[in-house]
Amino acid sequence: MEIQNFFPVWNKLSHPQQELLRQHTTARSASKGTILYSGSTECTGLILIKSGQLRAYILSPEGREITVYRLFERDICLLSASCIMRSLQFEITIEAEKDTDFLLILPDAYRQIMEESAPLANFTNEVMASRFSDVMWLIEQVMWKSFDKRLAKFLLEESVIENSDQLKITHEAIGNHLGSPREVVTRMLRYFQNEGMVKLSRGRVILIDRDQLNALQDT
Amino acid sequence: MEIQNFFPVWNKLSHPQQELLRQHTTARSASKGTILYSGSTECTGLILIKSGQLRAYILSPEGREITVYRLFERDICLLSASCIMRSLQFEITIEAEKDTDFLLILPDAYRQIMEESAPLANFTNEVMASRFSDVMWLIEQVMWKSFDKRLAKFLLEESVIENSDQLKITHEAIGNHLGSPREVVTRMLRYFQNEGMVKLSRGRVILIDRDQLNALQDT
Repeated sequence: MEIQNFFPVWNKLSHPQQELLRQHTTARSASKGTILYSGSTECTGLILIKSGQLRAYILSPEGREITVYRLFERDICLLSASCIMRSLQFEITIEAEKDTDFLLILPDAYRQIMEESAPLANFTNEVMASRFSDVMWLIEQVMWKSFDKRLAKFLLEESVIENSDQLKITHEAIGNHLGSPREVVTRMLRYFQNEGMVKLSRGRVILIDRDQLNALQDT
Repeated sequence: MEIQNFFPVWNKLSHPQQELLRQHTTARSASKGTILYSGSTECTGLILIKSGQLRAYILSPEGREITVYRLFERDICLLSASCIMRSLQFEITIEAEKDTDFLLILPDAYRQIMEESAPLANFTNEVMASRFSDVMWLIEQVMWKSFDKRLAKFLLEESVIENSDQLKITHEAIGNHLGSPREVVTRMLRYFQNEGMVKLSRGRVILIDRDQLNALQDT
């Protein structure tokens, strides 16, 4: 996977811009558990994930953690290059949650091209907006703590009704049961999948950790 | 206050771009309590605050609210034009917390120019990064709920020590007392000021609502 595969706007960059980006990009790898960035270290750069998994989390003064979001193959980690935007002012830690191969783009080169190129600036905007949305979603979970429990409860009940761990049901149908938009259901199911509670496939939700779902609905 | 006063990058736009923005900008006003935008209504546009105060908040399914941030004179409200970025996917409500005069830029015109103009796209990025930072700060408050109490306690104690509601102390000095970076202190003090608990002036923190500070430190 090359740098151009990560940027849908690659062909809207000039050849000199493409070259400059390539020259400031290196292939790296990090073993599971490696801290790739933390709020207090210098600006690492943009991380383009070729394979593996990253976790972004914040730390309390007492050392408690909360996962803000996860990043997977083909995702771009922007906050590890927070210096490219002076208004990004918060501390976050990025760790390799699995062995990870990635491309690293140095922040100065990226910023330089972003300042010239509207397509790259707008693409960067979309990446940030996506992370921003993840964080807003997390706030809602943290504040209201209700939909995840309701969904866990619903899946367990359906599983009893169908006498199966494989539920043939669309996200829209679940949303209709719970009075929630399909998008919200999809997002929460993906979160459940990341947490190893379910597996999603076309038209199906497969329960793979009933204990964890049970624990969730009871919290 | 005209549209160009809100955009530090105004002079980096072409004359046709400036004209297009002006043609799609109208002066509006909203009385206290007016809902200017909510996640379910259509895309309102960018709101440039000439005077007054806006509040952005999220709502729980049960109707509980939490303020995500406030916007004041000269601020730009971007999330009321969330349609300009397809990756901004969350529901937020914007209300006029005081009688507010503002300029409204229609989203299509703004998006069109942002797609052409790297300076405008990068400026928009900075505005979003700033709101993103506000939200991350809120998560930390919500999750760890400690620094605000420690700061309230500290101010009340200092006030007893100095036998005055006017504390001559720098934010850095407070940070040194509490083991926190100056920026964190400044941010929390501004929050206290917005909440009417203190007033900030050069080198001073004036306690104006001891009851509220007391209530805070005891929560």
